[in-house]
Amino acid sequence: MPIAGQGDKWLRTFVPYQLYRISNQLNQRLRVRLRKSGVNHARWRVLAVLRAYGKLKLGQIVDLTVMEQPSVSRIVTQLEREGLARRNVSKDDSRVVYVSLTAAGQKAFQEIYPTAKRHQKRALDGFSDDDIERLTDYLRRIQDNIETVE
Amino acid sequence: MPIAGQGDKWLRTFVPYQLYRISNQLNQRLRVRLRKSGVNHARWRVLAVLRAYGKLKLGQIVDLTVMEQPSVSRIVTQLEREGLARRNVSKDDSRVVYVSLTAAGQKAFQEIYPTAKRHQKRALDGFSDDDIERLTDYLRRIQDNIETVE
Repeated sequence: MPIAGQGDKWLRTFVPYQLYRISNQLNQRLRVRLRKSGVNHARWRVLAVLRAYGKLKLGQIVDLTVMEQPSVSRIVTQLEREGLARRNVSKDDSRVVYVSLTAAGQKAFQEIYPTAKRHQKRALDGFSDDDIERLTDYLRRIQDNIETVE
Repeated sequence: MPIAGQGDKWLRTFVPYQLYRISNQLNQRLRVRLRKSGVNHARWRVLAVLRAYGKLKLGQIVDLTVMEQPSVSRIVTQLEREGLARRNVSKDDSRVVYVSLTAAGQKAFQEIYPTAKRHQKRALDGFSDDDIERLTDYLRRIQDNIETVE
């Protein structure tokens, strides 16, 4: 592989790098958008996964948000105090606690949701429905590969 | 949008979230792989962008690696001390300093490269060349959208 004076541009076809860079940039932009709406980014993440997956254990929220356990724990406590989330002990196993959104929590999600939707719309500007479907499918396949290979 | 007891799964079609999650998981895995080969992840990132883009200003390395300026600065100093990178004052503007890899730096990159390549290969297991091309194209379009919209 000969090296040009300006580099060999190998990262242009290195998909993990492209994903990393885009994801970081999207993240920064979403953070700014949410801040403008007075919403904390970390709180939004917790609301988002609770909305998507219903009842979740703390560890599942950690996994789905890719956040640190102490941060998730702190946010859940805040949300509970504000009446946006509740903790319920599992009927099957009293050691297991589930977190879920209250009706007020669902409402809080709905108020932020348009911001997130706009965020996605701009990122996918010019994509047809087929493109989006294909892209989502590719991402799902990568996700499966990551989860199974090691 | 009715809420099922298990959530409405809206994140499954929210591309920024899919990108974020995959990118974080890939990153964690690459970090582990590199650590096994005795390579520091942050150093690898700096080597990778210098290899790809040739001469770069410090700010460009910060931008391309999505790392903090002090970390990049520290790593460049280390690489310089070990003879893997050099700093050159621009001929056109003496205030501008370019960082580039030395021959030893190129060699260091080559030794780590197979690990990165294997990493990508596993993530894209089952993807045809056409799939990869289409995916890279989608990611490039998102990148362009992000850079132009705001």
